[in-house]
Amino acid sequence: ADKPVLFAGPCVVESMDICIEIGSRAKTLAKQIGFEYVFKASFDKANRTSSGSFRSIGMDKALGVLEEVGKALDVPLLTDVHESSQIKEVAKVVDVLQIPAFLCRQTDLLLAAGESGKAVKIKRGQFMAPEDMRFAVDKIRSTGNDKVCLTERGFSLGYHNLVVDMRALPIMRQFAPVVFDVTHSVQQPGGLGGSSGGQREMAPYLARAAGAAGVDGFFIETHPDPSKALSDGPNMVPLAEMEAFLSMIKEAWLLGEKYKGFKI
Amino acid sequence: ADKPVLFAGPCVVESMDICIEIGSRAKTLAKQIGFEYVFKASFDKANRTSSGSFRSIGMDKALGVLEEVGKALDVPLLTDVHESSQIKEVAKVVDVLQIPAFLCRQTDLLLAAGESGKAVKIKRGQFMAPEDMRFAVDKIRSTGNDKVCLTERGFSLGYHNLVVDMRALPIMRQFAPVVFDVTHSVQQPGGLGGSSGGQREMAPYLARAAGAAGVDGFFIETHPDPSKALSDGPNMVPLAEMEAFLSMIKEAWLLGEKYKGFKI
Amino acid sequence: ADKPVLFAGPCVVESMDICIEIGSRAKTLAKQIGFEYVFKASFDKANRTSSGSFRSIGMDKALGVLEEVGKALDVPLLTDVHESSQIKEVAKVVDVLQIPAFLCRQTDLLLAAGESGKAVKIKRGQFMAPEDMRFAVDKIRSTGNDKVCLTERGFSLGYHNLVVDMRALPIMRQFAPVVFDVTHSVQQPGGLGGSSGGQREMAPYLARAAGAAGVDGFFIETHPDPSKALSDGPNMVPLAEMEAFLSMIKEAWLLGEKYKGFKI
Amino acid sequence: ADKPVLFAGPCVVESMDICIEIGSRAKTLAKQIGFEYVFKASFDKANRTSSGSFRSIGMDKALGVLEEVGKALDVPLLTDVHESSQIKEVAKVVDVLQIPAFLCRQTDLLLAAGESGKAVKIKRGQFMAPEDMRFAVDKIRSTGNDKVCLTERGFSLGYHNLVVDMRALPIMRQFAPVVFDVTHSVQQPGGLGGSSGGQREMAPYLARAAGAAGVDGFFIETHPDPSKALSDGPNMVPLAEMEAFLSMIKEAWLLGEKYKGFKI
Repeated sequence: ADKPVLFAGPCVVESMDICIEIGSRAKTLAKQIGFEYVFKASFDKANRTSSGSFRSIGMDKALGVLEEVGKALDVPLLTDVHESSQIKEVAKVVDVLQIPAFLCRQTDLLLAAGESGKAVKIKRGQFMAPEDMRFAVDKIRSTGNDKVCLTERGFSLGYHNLVVDMRALPIMRQFAPVVFDVTHSVQQPGGLGGSSGGQREMAPYLARAAGAAGVDGFFIETHPDPSKALSDGPNMVPLAEMEAFLSMIKEAWLLGEKYKGFKI
Repeated sequence: ADKPVLFAGPCVVESMDICIEIGSRAKTLAKQIGFEYVFKASFDKANRTSSGSFRSIGMDKALGVLEEVGKALDVPLLTDVHESSQIKEVAKVVDVLQIPAFLCRQTDLLLAAGESGKAVKIKRGQFMAPEDMRFAVDKIRSTGNDKVCLTERGFSLGYHNLVVDMRALPIMRQFAPVVFDVTHSVQQPGGLGGSSGGQREMAPYLARAAGAAGVDGFFIETHPDPSKALSDGPNMVPLAEMEAFLSMIKEAWLLGEKYKGFKI
Repeated sequence: ADKPVLFAGPCVVESMDICIEIGSRAKTLAKQIGFEYVFKASFDKANRTSSGSFRSIGMDKALGVLEEVGKALDVPLLTDVHESSQIKEVAKVVDVLQIPAFLCRQTDLLLAAGESGKAVKIKRGQFMAPEDMRFAVDKIRSTGNDKVCLTERGFSLGYHNLVVDMRALPIMRQFAPVVFDVTHSVQQPGGLGGSSGGQREMAPYLARAAGAAGVDGFFIETHPDPSKALSDGPNMVPLAEMEAFLSMIKEAWLLGEKYKGFKI
Repeated sequence: ADKPVLFAGPCVVESMDICIEIGSRAKTLAKQIGFEYVFKASFDKANRTSSGSFRSIGMDKALGVLEEVGKALDVPLLTDVHESSQIKEVAKVVDVLQIPAFLCRQTDLLLAAGESGKAVKIKRGQFMAPEDMRFAVDKIRSTGNDKVCLTERGFSLGYHNLVVDMRALPIMRQFAPVVFDVTHSVQQPGGLGGSSGGQREMAPYLARAAGAAGVDGFFIETHPDPSKALSDGPNMVPLAEMEAFLSMIKEAWLLGEKYKGFKI
């Protein structure tokens, strides 16, 4: 592609207003700076550490909001799926089905996603060797669907910590396009005692690094006020910083793209 | 309890004959050596690394075999569940629902399992801090179901490798009884290029260590001929070795039990 | 051997009184419970995280204390060496030279230790695959000295954390006798911001586990008042708890010894 | 600084001819592309995995070669030191003393290096939390010597594997300038059974990533024929590729420099 893809939005569908505010700004910036834009929001946070955390405004309502956002802003949509039974309904609304990292080896979910005909974005499990993501890609392709990409979001490193191994990017690009997940790569799973913490301050360094190493796109969760976001606030990029952030990572991406074929 | 629990069986329901052969031998040994026995077999291997590997003889057929085995041998049954929609049907047949490690944070699956009223055995994710398993236990208990136990099966350690952190055992026993999974703790995920390898030779050391550190039970996959097992053969305990193996880990368990309250 | 070896003492030579108090008690307990006893104390903490931490009462003075302790209690002595130039002087006083974990690949230090003719105890580096410790053993043996043993004290696991991989014990026992370091295995390197923290409460679990997996000895730092110890207090076994602790790990060792040849 | 530093040379002093060939080419390229150049070669490989591997042509001879190279090419010199007793002699010849990663907590070595008045370059241990390198820097500064920099070369990740955590770069830059070690970051310790393997093909990705994240310099081992290099050949950048490689990482460095102050 001549432009990187940008998946951006709130972590979860909070309300129509928030989605429109974030999506319209992200769309404008993507056009201005040069990204293919896809609006992202989860309809349900199905794997919160603790059951006391916010999950969803309800699947039907959230999918309704997503559909409205897509129409109002004329943008493609991405959301996560968690069980194969959800895929039919979700695929009616969105353009890209995202397979959560924990679920990247659930064969039924992958096959159902592939069979929907929609694009499928698979997050590398925090426990998966990058070379083994080839088999996840193969599961999608076995359905005749070639619209598949992978996502890097860090390895488990001990307790409440993740590390991004940049080697995963070129390894996985052998199999499919690769997106760097800026937000979850700086997560600290369970780090706040029952909910996940994050190191937002590390996002610029990792995002520049990943862009320069070489990727096909970026995934960023953003919010006008991350401290009030219902999920993953500590690792989000504030909406007001997105213009500068996107300009920066676009430059990093151009560098990675220039040296894409460089081998020693 | 005055005896440890033994969950043992083939990895997957291969055939009635194999299940009866393994289950009857395991039941006999458990009685002889002193374990509470539960027959274990998966009805479906839903997260194989590669889609080319064996999954199942079919859910209905496999559940039918399980039911027959339970009746024929008069033993309780355990099997894995992968999506919440399966739980109603599976819970009709088995006594213990096992939540796979990758799925230990899927709230819907945990809640549905809890609501079934059956005992629920949750494997610690290879990416989860042991102290965060408290929240998984809480999800089950929030349904009013207190029959929940946890399982240790190793942390991701880099590429194609797991490490068992024995600290996880006392940490998790604060929340619920803990089972040591002898078989998957010596797995090498994706280590054979598209399927998982294993280090069966390490099983005696880790099982003795876990027993002495202190656990409430053991989980062991076994087969009369592991080289022909349809899944996880490289890390199984051969059925012919089970008598000696169980005697050994019973001794280790007694040691752990003796020093259960030892603190410094 | 028909008994496990016990290396025990304060972390560092603090004073003659403390050394005699600890050494005489440890000797008595070792005889009573059945260990071969070696008194352990460092003459210098040469690799403290921060230079503000206590290092030594001085090399000459500390070696003098060690020598006196050896004579007064009639026990063999172990201390660490950090540079090859120290070995000649240290070897005059002690019976066992300990190679610190960070230094387990320093060829000159290993060769000089081997050439001293004294027994050499090498700690596995927190960064070393257990199978690679074979080469460290070979360096000692290349000097014609066969009195060499290895020590397990955990792998680096991310930031400020260690994990003991019990597989390291049988792997390293292929090359030389193996000692389990109870104290440093529960260290949290740099965990207190400029000095190392520790999880003393985990020592009983790991020590039982290691004994049952199978080792040739144990290394334990102890102090009448760990909260006043000049180094590694948070992970020490209090002297008053040593009798119960040693009885417990002797039982674990007997179990490991009984099943030493058990293979599947 | 307005230019990044380049530390480059063969891994070890092999011969005068090789040193001159590499050093003159590297100096030319550094000037042409815009790096401050320092010639690097070890006088001794003091921590080879196995004692059968090449160590040195002899300390005196190797230091003599280094001195000649410095004069002939008019370039500053860097070499490693392993014991504090070596520092006086080595400091007569070189401008920068490098502390090996395994030795980054050896207080005597750090203090002696600091007291030499020479610049000191400390490699982060594969086992050290980046924030704890502050204490290593403090040890140098406590001698009144402020010429100190740090180096990133990866964390231990399990057996025979390293992972570079790019977060270490901004963390350590809080304390001192940081150099990215391109060569050792792609090492596979002990990965060839008694000697270390490497993933040269990963060097371009990690070097671009580190440059874009932000560093003050790069460390690269190079050789006209890496397959014949006496140490670390599998992870070296071939001399013939250095021009393209340096141009590429200079661009990455400029990007990192441009966004040095970028915070969210």
